[in-house]
Amino acid sequence: MSRTLTPSRKADRMSDDRSALDAVLDEALVGYLGISLDEGPLVLPISYARDGDRLLFHGSTGSHRMRAIAAGAEVCFSVAVMDALKISRTGEGTGMRYRSAVVFGACTRLDDSEKEQALEAYLERYLPGRTAEVRPSTKKELAATMVLSLPLEQWSVKTASGFPSDEPEDIAAGGWAGVVPLRTVWDAPIPNPDLGLGIDVPASVLRLTGQASDSGS
Amino acid sequence: MSRTLTPSRKADRMSDDRSALDAVLDEALVGYLGISLDEGPLVLPISYARDGDRLLFHGSTGSHRMRAIAAGAEVCFSVAVMDALKISRTGEGTGMRYRSAVVFGACTRLDDSEKEQALEAYLERYLPGRTAEVRPSTKKELAATMVLSLPLEQWSVKTASGFPSDEPEDIAAGGWAGVVPLRTVWDAPIPNPDLGLGIDVPASVLRLTGQASDSGS
Repeated sequence: MSRTLTPSRKADRMSDDRSALDAVLDEALVGYLGISLDEGPLVLPISYARDGDRLLFHGSTGSHRMRAIAAGAEVCFSVAVMDALKISRTGEGTGMRYRSAVVFGACTRLDDSEKEQALEAYLERYLPGRTAEVRPSTKKELAATMVLSLPLEQWSVKTASGFPSDEPEDIAAGGWAGVVPLRTVWDAPIPNPDLGLGIDVPASVLRLTGQASDSGS
Repeated sequence: MSRTLTPSRKADRMSDDRSALDAVLDEALVGYLGISLDEGPLVLPISYARDGDRLLFHGSTGSHRMRAIAAGAEVCFSVAVMDALKISRTGEGTGMRYRSAVVFGACTRLDDSEKEQALEAYLERYLPGRTAEVRPSTKKELAATMVLSLPLEQWSVKTASGFPSDEPEDIAAGGWAGVVPLRTVWDAPIPNPDLGLGIDVPASVLRLTGQASDSGS
């Protein structure tokens, strides 16, 4: 399974296609934010939202790591979406179809006037339509939350697509080769244990799970 | 959506449970390997296999990044599996159920005598049973491949589970809250365009996609 996720196979392409970047960033649910600390590198899985030409991260104002990142250290943000397993006639040629993106830069901290809109963008990214269903954030909630912004200036996106490419002698040997696509699905919602009776699943959740909402809603 | 993927919510637990670590490492398909370079941090999405008490990575001997990592730099390996979206009655309380792991250390390069077994472990991790269906790696293939090992010595694993926890006044307001589980599924295999006629899908692929293989195979 050599060279998986490294840029050496024929069907792998580095690209500066901004729409491809946006697609990967908008599809992945979690990213990985790396910083270089004195004691060595640290990579944190982190939720994020793309808001136009920037990425938004947020966390508690009490988080030491968030404060270190907010102080302007160089970061590397990396994300990948796995699309399929590529199965070669040999072990060596087996790998993944994937799309990945990497963003370099430094984060800045949003001031209070920008936070509310940023948190709405964050919520909408994970559950479109949800903002209209919930109350606005309180001043206390906003004060306890730090929102960081990373500009989409220095980035690259990479796509590994296609089918495994075997040598003529391996093809002649008659083995199977192909691709097995991979997909993420949302299952039916589970109500909170503290949910009262007669409270309907909201439209945002019905849309996420692919269930049609009532025609009237 | 505060505090998502940071260790501050009640249902989030840092743990030194080795079986939980192994479960996350064995389930995720891609990890993120961070190194501190002179020009800043670099985080690479990378395929990997857990082989007992170590992680295995591999790549081309021609890769500059792999050689830098092989030279013994401190690395941070991070991986996360998203299990569900936790939907609070408020925007602020919405987040993910997930399991994540982080491993710190330095990689060593396997010598030629260890490579063949390591590459088999790699292939078996992505497609169990495949090793027995393909020819062994050639000496040339082994020579072109670098295999790195990272010991599972310094690590932590974190689990965010449970349901969103809302304040009494938000519960009283009557909104919906709950969890939407997330699942990865393999779709039906797509044969390679260069596949000859009459070549059956192998048992390893049938098992991956949940299709029963013929009783005779």
